Amino acid sequence: MGSRAHRVSLGDAWSGRVHPDIESERRWPAFDVERLTNLLDGGAQNTALRRKVETLVRDDPAFNLIHTHFMTQDEHFQAATQRLFLIQKLAKRMDWPDDSLEFQYIYRALSGDISLGVHSVAMNAIKSLGSEEQIAKWVPLCKTYQIIVSYAQTEMGHGTYLQGLETEATYDAATQEFVIHSPTMTATKWWPGDLGQAATHALVMAQLTCSGARWGMHAFMVPIRSLQDHTPLPGITVGDIGPKMGIEITDNGFLRLDHVRVPRENMLSRFTQVSPDGTYVRHGIAQVNYLPMVVTRVYMLRNIVLYGLQKACVIATRYSVIRRQSRIRPSDPEAKILDYQTQQQKLIFPLAMGYAFHFQVASIMDFFHRSYDAIRNKDMSLLPELHALTTGSKAMMTEFGAHGVELCRRACGGHGYSKLSGMPSLATYLLASCTYEGENTVLYLQVARFLVKNCRQAWEASDPASRKSLPQSVSYLTAARVDKCPAQTEAHFLHPELYMQAWAHVAARLLESSVHHLQMLVQAGADEHEAWNQTSVLLLQAAKAHCYYITVKNFKEALEKLEHGEPAVHRVLKRLCDLFALHGILADLGSFLYDGFLSAPQVNMLRTTYLDLLLQIRKDAILLTDAFDFTDQCLNSALGCYDGNVYERLFQWAQMSPNNNSQEKPAYTKYIRPLMQSRGSKL
Amino acid sequence: MGSRAHRVSLGDAWSGRVHPDIESERRWPAFDVERLTNLLDGGAQNTALRRKVETLVRDDPAFNLIHTHFMTQDEHFQAATQRLFLIQKLAKRMDWPDDSLEFQYIYRALSGDISLGVHSVAMNAIKSLGSEEQIAKWVPLCKTYQIIVSYAQTEMGHGTYLQGLETEATYDAATQEFVIHSPTMTATKWWPGDLGQAATHALVMAQLTCSGARWGMHAFMVPIRSLQDHTPLPGITVGDIGPKMGIEITDNGFLRLDHVRVPRENMLSRFTQVSPDGTYVRHGIAQVNYLPMVVTRVYMLRNIVLYGLQKACVIATRYSVIRRQSRIRPSDPEAKILDYQTQQQKLIFPLAMGYAFHFQVASIMDFFHRSYDAIRNKDMSLLPELHALTTGSKAMMTEFGAHGVELCRRACGGHGYSKLSGMPSLATYLLASCTYEGENTVLYLQVARFLVKNCRQAWEASDPASRKSLPQSVSYLTAARVDKCPAQTEAHFLHPELYMQAWAHVAARLLESSVHHLQMLVQAGADEHEAWNQTSVLLLQAAKAHCYYITVKNFKEALEKLEHGEPAVHRVLKRLCDLFALHGILADLGSFLYDGFLSAPQVNMLRTTYLDLLLQIRKDAILLTDAFDFTDQCLNSALGCYDGNVYERLFQWAQMSPNNNSQEKPAYTKYIRPLMQSRGSKL
Repeated sequence: MGSRAHRVSLGDAWSGRVHPDIESERRWPAFDVERLTNLLDGGAQNTALRRKVETLVRDDPAFNLIHTHFMTQDEHFQAATQRLFLIQKLAKRMDWPDDSLEFQYIYRALSGDISLGVHSVAMNAIKSLGSEEQIAKWVPLCKTYQIIVSYAQTEMGHGTYLQGLETEATYDAATQEFVIHSPTMTATKWWPGDLGQAATHALVMAQLTCSGARWGMHAFMVPIRSLQDHTPLPGITVGDIGPKMGIEITDNGFLRLDHVRVPRENMLSRFTQVSPDGTYVRHGIAQVNYLPMVVTRVYMLRNIVLYGLQKACVIATRYSVIRRQSRIRPSDPEAKILDYQTQQQKLIFPLAMGYAFHFQVASIMDFFHRSYDAIRNKDMSLLPELHALTTGSKAMMTEFGAHGVELCRRACGGHGYSKLSGMPSLATYLLASCTYEGENTVLYLQVARFLVKNCRQAWEASDPASRKSLPQSVSYLTAARVDKCPAQTEAHFLHPELYMQAWAHVAARLLESSVHHLQMLVQAGADEHEAWNQTSVLLLQAAKAHCYYITVKNFKEALEKLEHGEPAVHRVLKRLCDLFALHGILADLGSFLYDGFLSAPQVNMLRTTYLDLLLQIRKDAILLTDAFDFTDQCLNSALGCYDGNVYERLFQWAQMSPNNNSQEKPAYTKYIRPLMQSRGSKL
Repeated sequence: MGSRAHRVSLGDAWSGRVHPDIESERRWPAFDVERLTNLLDGGAQNTALRRKVETLVRDDPAFNLIHTHFMTQDEHFQAATQRLFLIQKLAKRMDWPDDSLEFQYIYRALSGDISLGVHSVAMNAIKSLGSEEQIAKWVPLCKTYQIIVSYAQTEMGHGTYLQGLETEATYDAATQEFVIHSPTMTATKWWPGDLGQAATHALVMAQLTCSGARWGMHAFMVPIRSLQDHTPLPGITVGDIGPKMGIEITDNGFLRLDHVRVPRENMLSRFTQVSPDGTYVRHGIAQVNYLPMVVTRVYMLRNIVLYGLQKACVIATRYSVIRRQSRIRPSDPEAKILDYQTQQQKLIFPLAMGYAFHFQVASIMDFFHRSYDAIRNKDMSLLPELHALTTGSKAMMTEFGAHGVELCRRACGGHGYSKLSGMPSLATYLLASCTYEGENTVLYLQVARFLVKNCRQAWEASDPASRKSLPQSVSYLTAARVDKCPAQTEAHFLHPELYMQAWAHVAARLLESSVHHLQMLVQAGADEHEAWNQTSVLLLQAAKAHCYYITVKNFKEALEKLEHGEPAVHRVLKRLCDLFALHGILADLGSFLYDGFLSAPQVNMLRTTYLDLLLQIRKDAILLTDAFDFTDQCLNSALGCYDGNVYERLFQWAQMSPNNNSQEKPAYTKYIRPLMQSRGSKL
């Protein structure tokens, strides 16, 4: 199946005619778009399978997403629940195996607008923290939706700092039960998804007390609604937390527990057990209870952050070759806005990010798959690095992703504010991701702590052997480094080794400065905790530079593998990698100039190289966004369709507004008409 | 009336008890909060009047805004129309004069949640561009709401570049009428507020053709809906453009005109006339038709951008002394999040901006009032500078304001994503402001063009006399400047002269570099237009530095007037001014290091000064936000009330969610229950 016919999936009046302004962008491709798509999919067979799944949902009106633009929060949730229901039906009919690629692809095809996502999070948590018996008991019930489970961690007064959670689980040896209780208003579980309306059970994260001691956060399976009539069980207060900025498909809820009793077996006990008499036993380290969050982060980075950013790039770039505004020369016709340097600056960085993050996700997935089973089998050696990697990637990808989507949204001008553009929904999803699954500032500071700890160990050890034992992702920080950028020409800035050195230098220097600042404060009499706080602005900067380095490195290494097999694809991707690295340097130029690593003439050369890259990438921009191969249906944007018929679709979609289809005009009859008729008389 | 009793305006169960964590912040004020409030209000008598107006709306349930959080777009519009209706009634009862402060204060008291704002924009446009006869005819009709007018400028395919507007107004001398017509799909008026449902008339901006020539954009009064039954008039297609990211109170609409005829008198003709035979006459310059946009920008900067930013600061700062998370020392209780350096970094810059922009708005208002009447009386000498000032301020204040509100929103963690926090609404208003009334990038480039034009003239002229003729706001660019920062100690960075020099240096250097780049490209063979485009990334940077300079300058000059009369208030405000200036330098450090203006040791000193300012301002942060004197009613935030009872209010407000008050659970009965009951059988 050809990709073009595939992408044009709305089947409306305009899909047949491609706008000449976008057609011309595709006329002389500098590389084989299909090969790049295959590369992103992990092989041509995956591309084929994905398209097969996409075709399945294309023609069913229940999977049409256009109407979601006009829905209330509750209607969104209903529609997303309906889609979940229909997918389960389809999966049975098609006999898709559990956890197969088909599920991943149908999720993507429907733009993730499917409810009960947190049910999957909770199921993964059971797989991560549950004993084999518990997995055997609960996971099949989850998979067949005989129960629906919310992952209830966040509380009204407690988020990323899990030690602060207040919900109590006190073991009662007399009955062999845990008593789960919300002691205060701030202990109310608040925000968990699938909780407001759907869940029958909650996997409640609570502070365990047994044998008179507190053992920290553990996970408890708690039935919360009747399996018969769905009403709250005794001791349970549960409901909806009200309207949100976005993510309407999720019924975020609250939960208060009033001394609710669950049997001893309901504490997930792969790594920790409470024996009948209340004795507490732990295998592995306490941090293992964070494993479900690690798993969740890995999947959210792909499904929400990466896809969201890529879709925003597709929409904004396509719109920018249709939209014409102003004239570059007075004698010319109005120009495509993508031909303005400032528009290129806005859009091409997010596009480069859309590729950089693809390879970043691939690298994290790879590390995750290598380490997850070992951790579940109680080998904790890779847990700290997995935690640091996913923590840093979560913070960086969501922060930069949200920024990138917002750049794309604004690059669409006023129409980017219309929900019909698809942009507001993408933007608000990405904004949320900066906070949930760990607030980004806190996460960056966790990365900083990991870096400081490891590097201090290495610096303090004199023998090279202990340096070798540094986690692989941070070993560069203690390696010998270049103190002056050796670039002498503009072209030198296109050498990946050169910009890698630059990022390594700055990340290491910022970390050293932070450690130095910490020591200085301690020497001046501050205690180490206060010193940490008073250094946290610097530590944050160091952690960010480290995350940027890691992302550039992953991109560069992924490209090295392509160099020989796919020269044309390699060429266009390398430009994106170059641009990603150089954009980051220009955005944080002070850090590179501060110690003379870069000189002013080098900055001029770097900027010239950067501006030239914008022009070069602009030529391939439409093809580079086509290569993501999102269907029109999944983009769900009046601005972003493959055929470029922006204005016709915007006009037609707006006609669906309830206001344009109702005879009742209450604002007019109740207030405007009386106002007009008062004519200066007493109202 | 005391300010405390005044601010606590919700009158709910918690208003009587102030949370000890916020009470303690107010215990030992370093300055008189009331005096600062009076200063912001422009005098104690204004504060008293404002509070009187606020009291009027406090007790009327129709003015309670809490329920707006749960409304659909159309319900928002209805409620905002009802409030407009009630305000008109109230104003009559109280006998408020037209354009009195009372209207400004009631707008503020109701958080601007009042419909028909664009009707006022259109009325101002009539006052700016209409002849005295036209003003006498139309303005009274507008004021008494006998007609409702939308300002219909933006088209589907044309925004900030007004020369590109396609709507045609062709003069027909035979009937002495203009024929107003939308020739294409992209010519459809799209986005004008008050158009979707309310307007009876549109002030249509269209390209005038008469005597066979085109004369550019002019304004035409066009009746669009029947005054009898509100149905569209012949030749008019009008309706709603559908769902948006925010600003639900405005019925943004579309309008297509099919050869609609209006009499010759309906072209606004203060500066341009078409005589009966079709002869075209102009007084003043063509750009005068931009005057309505200038007026609109001045008011939006105060009512939407400044108030929006300040409210976000109030909410986030109050929440940050109630929210506790993690421990600074393991032995301590959980800390107020405002005690973390990273939280201070997030919140104190927006707070400083909230004050900087207050004085910026005051300065613009002042310039506006000095120049507006002269321009209306056809003295165009101050129009270019007024245009450049409002253009630059609009771009900078909306860009930084949107960034500041988003910083505040994220600083509230997950709860900042709940609409009940009030933050999503503030954030989406500010995001919109970056695009409407002129897209920011285009505006910055207009400022750059103004700077380049003026400075080139000055540089090319050898005699000092022509330098003197530079507009006042740009004269610093050609003055002698310091090439190395003279700071030798940390304290030196607290000298306003010193950081003013720094900003002047960088703004002038960036402008010179841009001009140099332009010349270089032209010498290399590019035409000047292409060279401009290929320099626009640099020009943008120069324009931004200029705008920052102007803002710091206005803040500094406002403080100089306070130094003797109000020393305690001066002291706290000066810290904010220092912080605003230094934050900007640190955020764009590369520009200050590039040519050695700052050295690395100076950067260290500057950063130490900056971090120290964060700590000092943090102590006054609650009082500094109290001083804005927003009522709880107007903040409409569960997180931001004066009394600090965050969690109780969040819980109570969430209970109002329709989902928590309905017996019907369609998502459950239609989809979830069938899913649960299928148990592996065919669905």
